[in-house]
This record gives sequence, C-alpha cells and structure tokens, in this order.
Amino acid sequence: VTATAAPLVALRFDPAANALLALDQRRLPHEERVLELSDAAQVADAIRKLAIRGAPLIGVAAAYGVALQLAREPGSLDATCALLRGARPTAVNLSYAVDRVRAAASRAPSPAEAALHEARAIHHEEEAASDAIASHGAGLLSNARRLMTHCNTGALAAPGRGTALAVIAELFDRGTLESAVATETRPLLQGARLTVYELAKLGIPHELTVDSAAAGLIAGGAVDAVVVGCDRVAANGDVANKVGTYALALAARAAGIPFVVAGPTSTIDSSCPDGRSIKIEEREPEEVLRVGGTVLAPEGTACRNPAFDVTPASYVTALVTERGVAQPVDRESVAALR
Amino acid sequence: VTATAAPLVALRFDPAANALLALDQRRLPHEERVLELSDAAQVADAIRKLAIRGAPLIGVAAAYGVALQLAREPGSLDATCALLRGARPTAVNLSYAVDRVRAAASRAPSPAEAALHEARAIHHEEEAASDAIASHGAGLLSNARRLMTHCNTGALAAPGRGTALAVIAELFDRGTLESAVATETRPLLQGARLTVYELAKLGIPHELTVDSAAAGLIAGGAVDAVVVGCDRVAANGDVANKVGTYALALAARAAGIPFVVAGPTSTIDSSCPDGRSIKIEEREPEEVLRVGGTVLAPEGTACRNPAFDVTPASYVTALVTERGVAQPVDRESVAALR
Repeated sequence: VTATAAPLVALRFDPAANALLALDQRRLPHEERVLELSDAAQVADAIRKLAIRGAPLIGVAAAYGVALQLAREPGSLDATCALLRGARPTAVNLSYAVDRVRAAASRAPSPAEAALHEARAIHHEEEAASDAIASHGAGLLSNARRLMTHCNTGALAAPGRGTALAVIAELFDRGTLESAVATETRPLLQGARLTVYELAKLGIPHELTVDSAAAGLIAGGAVDAVVVGCDRVAANGDVANKVGTYALALAARAAGIPFVVAGPTSTIDSSCPDGRSIKIEEREPEEVLRVGGTVLAPEGTACRNPAFDVTPASYVTALVTERGVAQPVDRESVAALR
Repeated sequence: VTATAAPLVALRFDPAANALLALDQRRLPHEERVLELSDAAQVADAIRKLAIRGAPLIGVAAAYGVALQLAREPGSLDATCALLRGARPTAVNLSYAVDRVRAAASRAPSPAEAALHEARAIHHEEEAASDAIASHGAGLLSNARRLMTHCNTGALAAPGRGTALAVIAELFDRGTLESAVATETRPLLQGARLTVYELAKLGIPHELTVDSAAAGLIAGGAVDAVVVGCDRVAANGDVANKVGTYALALAARAAGIPFVVAGPTSTIDSSCPDGRSIKIEEREPEEVLRVGGTVLAPEGTACRNPAFDVTPASYVTALVTERGVAQPVDRESVAALR
C-alpha cells in the first residue's frame, strides 16, 4: 500500500501495475491520497477500515480483489472469496460481486483472466446502473427543488455518479434542483466529509446539518423530499442503510414528504425475507468516543455503535433502481425489479 | 473570570467573594474548572458561550447576575435585565427568573439585597422542584428498567439533581433501573461529555450512542422508555427541547414506548400558544464544522444549526413537573399545572 497521484474516480483498476487504485476515503476532504492495492488481503483491509466504502463500490472492489489474488496465487479461489465476503457483513453487494467472480473463475481455463473480466463487467454494469438510477430518480422527483440526503451515495460510494447523490446531481443538471441538505452522518461523518466534498465539486448549493437536526428541519418545511441509498434491501422492501436513515423516514412520513431509496438491484437480497433477518454490523466504540484527535467521553465508556438501521418498506415512498421504480414498495414490486 | 477549586455543584453563590461560582461545562469531562463571575456581563457571557447551560440552571444564574450587577451599579436594573434576558432566546426560564428578580428589586428599599434574596429563593425552589420531579417521574416510570435520554438534564443542567436525569437517578436509587442509554447530542455533545460524566459519578450502568442510532435502537427494543428535559413548553403542551428530541419522540411513538418530558413549571410559557410560536435559536456554523481541533468539512461550508426542535404535544406521553404529571399532554392538563 503506497501513495500515488490523485485520481478523479474513487476506484480504478490499473492493468500495468496489476493493482487496484482507490482514493482513501478516510482522509477526505483534507487529502486526496490514493491507495495501490495489490492483493485480496489489502483490498479486504481497505474495505474493513472504510478506506473504500459504499455498498456498490465495495462490491466492485472485492471483485477486483479476487482477480488480483488469483493472478498471484491461482489455487486460492475459495479462501480469497471467503476473506472478501467477510470484510463487512451488511452490504449484500459484496457477496453478490464475489459470488459472480467466483462462478466465472471456477469454470474458466484461465481463472485469473476470467475473474478480471468478470470484475470489469460488474464495474461497467454498476456505472450504467448509476446513470439509469439518476434518470429514473430524477423523473420521480422532478418537482423536488430542495432535497435532503444522508451519508454519502455519490461517486465515492458507487461506480459512476453514485445512487441517491446521482439523482441529486441529475436534477441539478436538469435545472430544477435549488439546493441539497447533507446530514453529517456520525460517527464517521461521511456526509460532512464526503457528500459536502462531492456537492462542492459538482457546484450544487448545499447546507450541512447534524443528524439530529434533520427531523426538525423536515417538520419545518426545509426540504421537499429525502433521498438516500441502501446497503441491503430485503425481499419485502425493508431497507438496511446507514444508521440514521430510519429517523429520516419517520420524519418524512410525519411531514408528508417523499422518502425515496435509490440503489442498484445488486443491493436487493431476495434470500432475505424482511428487515429482521438483516444482520446489522456493530462497530468499534472508538468511532463514537473520538472525532479526530478529540476524545468526547471518558475512556472505556460503553457504546452502542450499529453501522446501519432498518427502515420498514411501508415508510419508503419509492425504491429507485437501474431497472425502474418500485412504488409502493412491497414484496411484489421488489420482485418485479429482479 | 478566574479559575478556583472544583465544586461538587454546577452553580454556587459565594457571599464572601460576592461572586457566582460556576463549573465551566465547556471543559467537562476532561477538566473541572470553576468560573468566578462577578457581574452581569460575565454571567451573560457564560450563558451565551454555554459555560453555564440547561434551562433551569441558566434561569438561576441570570437571577444571581442581576443581584451581582445591582450591588455594583444600583441604577442598572433595566439594562441588566435586558442583557441577561437576551443571552439566549429559547429557554423561558431565563426571562421567568429575570422578571421575578426585577419585580422584587424594583419595589424594594434595598434593590441589591432584594435581588439576591429573590435569586436565592428561585435557586431553592428549583432544587425542591428537582426532587419533586424525580419522585413524580419515578412513580410514572416504575416499570421502565432501561431508559434512554438526550442531551444533559442532570445536576449540570438544573439545580439539585436536575430533571430527566433526576428521574433516572431516582429510579436507580429505588433499585428498579438497570441501565441508561445516553445520546451524544451533537453538535456540542452534552450527552457524551456531561450526561456520561454524571451517570459515571452516580454509578449508573450506561451506554453512549450517536444521535442517529437512537431511533433504530428504540425500534429494536433496546430501551423501555425515553425521558428528556425541556427548554420551553407551550400552552398547548408542544415542547421545545435540544435538537434531536423530536426524532426520539417519533421513534418512541412508532415503537409504542413512553416518551416522557420532565421539567419545572417555570419552563411552561403560558403566553406561547403552541410550538409554532417558539423562537428556535440558530447557532454558529462553527459548532457543526468542528469537533475540538478537528475540522469536519471544508471551511466556509454553509450550515443549518438549530439548537432546538419542537415536539408536538400529541407525541408526549406525559409531562412531569414538580406540581405533578400532565397525561395526556394538552392545553387543559398543562394549564392545570400552573
């Protein structure tokens, strides 16, 4: 893992170096540092430590991780896939992508080449999905002039322009969006660090707020709709997404404004019947206890630190995917997207 | 303003020094530094900068502030009261306490003595109110073994043991409380810094969480009830309290658990018909953009930073005051408490 020059994309495979180049998202917005990842262990580590994050992006990164490892160690397919699948437990894109690469490699005469081919295919499909999501979402939200979003769902979270943030960017490009409100997204501040960085680069007028202010702002009419991404969608339409999403859904429902979820169909886990079956990752207390060098509470304080929460399908106005929009969101409409 | 030894209480009037001694809450939990405040300007500054905070506590501090200034400058009653009333706009306790001291001083032969006498009376009344709130609240929540609270509402927020945190402490003393969940309360982290500090001092088992995790934890059955304080209660029972309160009320309602508000009747503003009439203080963007020495987002990022939000009365299961409990919370039950 070494530093090289800054790219304009979150993730890029470099055939010359046989390495995956990834913008280190832990250092943004202060430093644009690129990681050069050469094997599956480095990719898994970057995913686990959130240098690479965002459900669709970690799927693509893991796919390349399998290819990188097979090029070095041809007999390692099973162990490599297990390693990468386990890097983070909640996002289904990770196992979706790893399983696709595994299937392609296991039946090919040249497994490493087949794995790389499949990883590239997934990468390009996700880029195309981002464009389609942006288009479908912008159609749905054409009357929303002020949008709120949570966490980061742009080019740093998914190939292409992202998911929910791609919808916001598309509405801005179409000239109908006035402004966006980004929630900071404690504990890791992906909203403050990454979404604000992306909105500024895109030239979209924006305001930042602490997470807990969102409900009151929604109640006070500050935004016309809320649009977020998703880390796993159950077969019945329940949505696991970044912790804090559920409170935004409750506030949007109480205020009578749309609450829209955007993500590729690779995020839908049809083997998962409903939100109660989704495993929620609990992360280290250190994430809660510190911000940068500042210790917030006494050392050793016990914490609850779920990385995600579940929003019941009944609170989701529409689920926007590359294959179209499920509205209302229920078992039938979600199944129709697959 | 100079540093002296650490007290065990948030606020104490020192007759020998003719000064108000206040624990500087900006420095907790890392440093127990005491401010010695000698005039109204210093008291107003300490309130404005949140060295002294908590609706009941700033009322008492302002009352002493009037007395301190009158002892130095007997003709300053009008200007002093205007200064202190304006230190923070949302908590009604501030104007309630200042108006009481003003009335007492304006009709007395010795205004400074009368002001000090009235300030002490308010202080002792608030201490007694804290005990009564703890008792009424504990009666109401006798079956709640795990409670969630927001911001800080203990001895650092109100004379005596506080309000919502006094209820938690009383339930722990009665042997029925198992644990408390404290939300960190961005942007100023009163939960992480102050409530965790108080819970640790009280020996109450506790966990800390980011604000946005609260709704998911409530939905998942992590707590049996939510209890919070209040900065202003409108005549119809709508509650202005620390930003983030409303989202907890929404989540408690969705989960079917009690959402209880605790505060002295001095917090009820009968001149304010409903929540829409409550002025919500917007504070500096710097509070959102930085934590300690860490800059979270690009300098100059626009922020929305409301310090409070409004929870409609219909979401409040009960309002606990020193004069008893309003349940359900509506215009009639609130009026009956006055």
